[in-house]
Amino acid sequence: MPSFTVYKGSDSGKIVKAQTTRPDLKNDDVLVKVTASGVCGTDEHYKHADMALGHEGAGVVEDVGPGVTSLKKGDRVGWGYEHDSCGHCEYCLSGREQYCPERKMYGMADTDQGSFASHGVWREAFLFKIPDALTDIEAAPLMCGGATVFNALQATGVKPTDRVGIMGVGGLGHLAIQFASKMGCDVVVLSGTDSKKEEATKLGANDFIATKDKKEIDVGRKIDVLVVTTSVMPDWNVVLPALAPTATIIPLTVSEGDFVIPQNPLILGGHTIQGVAVSARAVHRQMLAFAALHNIKPIVMKFPMTEGGIEEAMGTLRDGKMRYRGVLIPQ
Amino acid sequence: MPSFTVYKGSDSGKIVKAQTTRPDLKNDDVLVKVTASGVCGTDEHYKHADMALGHEGAGVVEDVGPGVTSLKKGDRVGWGYEHDSCGHCEYCLSGREQYCPERKMYGMADTDQGSFASHGVWREAFLFKIPDALTDIEAAPLMCGGATVFNALQATGVKPTDRVGIMGVGGLGHLAIQFASKMGCDVVVLSGTDSKKEEATKLGANDFIATKDKKEIDVGRKIDVLVVTTSVMPDWNVVLPALAPTATIIPLTVSEGDFVIPQNPLILGGHTIQGVAVSARAVHRQMLAFAALHNIKPIVMKFPMTEGGIEEAMGTLRDGKMRYRGVLIPQ
Repeated sequence: MPSFTVYKGSDSGKIVKAQTTRPDLKNDDVLVKVTASGVCGTDEHYKHADMALGHEGAGVVEDVGPGVTSLKKGDRVGWGYEHDSCGHCEYCLSGREQYCPERKMYGMADTDQGSFASHGVWREAFLFKIPDALTDIEAAPLMCGGATVFNALQATGVKPTDRVGIMGVGGLGHLAIQFASKMGCDVVVLSGTDSKKEEATKLGANDFIATKDKKEIDVGRKIDVLVVTTSVMPDWNVVLPALAPTATIIPLTVSEGDFVIPQNPLILGGHTIQGVAVSARAVHRQMLAFAALHNIKPIVMKFPMTEGGIEEAMGTLRDGKMRYRGVLIPQ
Repeated sequence: MPSFTVYKGSDSGKIVKAQTTRPDLKNDDVLVKVTASGVCGTDEHYKHADMALGHEGAGVVEDVGPGVTSLKKGDRVGWGYEHDSCGHCEYCLSGREQYCPERKMYGMADTDQGSFASHGVWREAFLFKIPDALTDIEAAPLMCGGATVFNALQATGVKPTDRVGIMGVGGLGHLAIQFASKMGCDVVVLSGTDSKKEEATKLGANDFIATKDKKEIDVGRKIDVLVVTTSVMPDWNVVLPALAPTATIIPLTVSEGDFVIPQNPLILGGHTIQGVAVSARAVHRQMLAFAALHNIKPIVMKFPMTEGGIEEAMGTLRDGKMRYRGVLIPQ
């Protein structure tokens, strides 16, 4: 029976080291030794829960169950938000298993293990081979952050001829700039101040607009697709005039509040507000191949995979000081 | 120079009869004698403006300009919200001329004439031939109401296999039920009370849910596309659980307020909120052909095209007593 270290949340929010023991590998179970884990805002949501944290895993296959067919010991793999789905509902059958009513996802199921851990046992069907062009450390943040922004662009059917606005340069935004740029899009970044202008330009932005305290903004060519990666929604009275007709707005931040937008410009502009969740596996796999082909990599800050290291990483993220994605590395 | 009667709004909201004179017909101008005009909620918005009202016109060609090529005297034609566009911008060239920056629309341009009138002069390019299967009285309400709901379903790419929810049975809703039903969709109507259940069923609804004062509703099969034709948005906490994953919500009512929806269910459900405006001409033409093929007709109440008749029609609409679309008929 595999037994391994995990790092859990707790009532006080302090990170707690614990031990998880899982039954012997069955069916397509795979035992993965973790080599890197990204740190995502969603982990912060669960730090007060008695559950193992982390959902941007990268590692090496250490053992395989009897039904495993395509992975073997030593293969480099990653996993993300989703662990399982029924395989026979309308959503599973149409490649949208992230909406399967029986899906198992981070925070909802398998709470005894996560990617803040020494190991994990996951279904082969929900593991992704890491392309040779990406290291484990580079691949880990793509397993949720990368997949989320790539999926957002895919879900809206973004076209290479589109002007794409990325609002916010952080864990998600700095990847979204790269993906949209390599898709051929004309990328404009909207950020509070000019402090990240040089970096955004290096990542592929064609334009950069500082928005703080602005009552109106001039984005030049109007925006066809706006990806909002900031935790706070923009002042729509400032941003809506910067959108082209029939623009798509993609709010990526999970928030307990309401999404609020002036109704007339929404309707008369023919705009779309697109909710997107976790990517499906087929899209996730395309994302990895696309990142490998185009040399798209997260910019990371490394922290040790220890109680202290995890708390430092989460604190850095909370304080808005992460440049741009934290990665935990086993010692 | 064509000279004809129009009915205008005024400061007090009283309908005022007036005379409009237009230059001699040039280019592709067409002089249309009005035989029927629908009465739409948008007319109510403009009743305090010094402009000719009405934008659901049907009539007969009385004279044509030198550049007219496909219409001739005696042809039956209709027109809607849009009168003109530039013809060379990205939106015009891609069949989305309703978003042309130079478009001319009701309330914005040509305010000296409307469909509450004896005649009007309109560009041939923005007139639609009325199919033989539809009378002028039947065709008039399709020129805005019918086009709007048909376009809403087209814009979302509604599939015959979708479960379509129509919220509200009125001028728009009673047409949306028919269009969605004839598209093969499984139609469920959400209405305040059961009072319109029998009629909605006759129009093609498979299910009918009375929503008033309900804290939760059981719609059975979940809704893939929800068309909201009511002027007030529903309580999303009641309606969101009735939506299937990746559902599309289409709010049709132009309103000065905000569109507000809980953010988490929007994102995690992968839902789309689709703003849709006036239909493009290509879609408008498809709508007329589809209505003619499938015997889709508005249910109308007739009023005389006089100052008193217009005020009576608009009052009936305002009081929520229109069953379901008012049509003005010249005396």
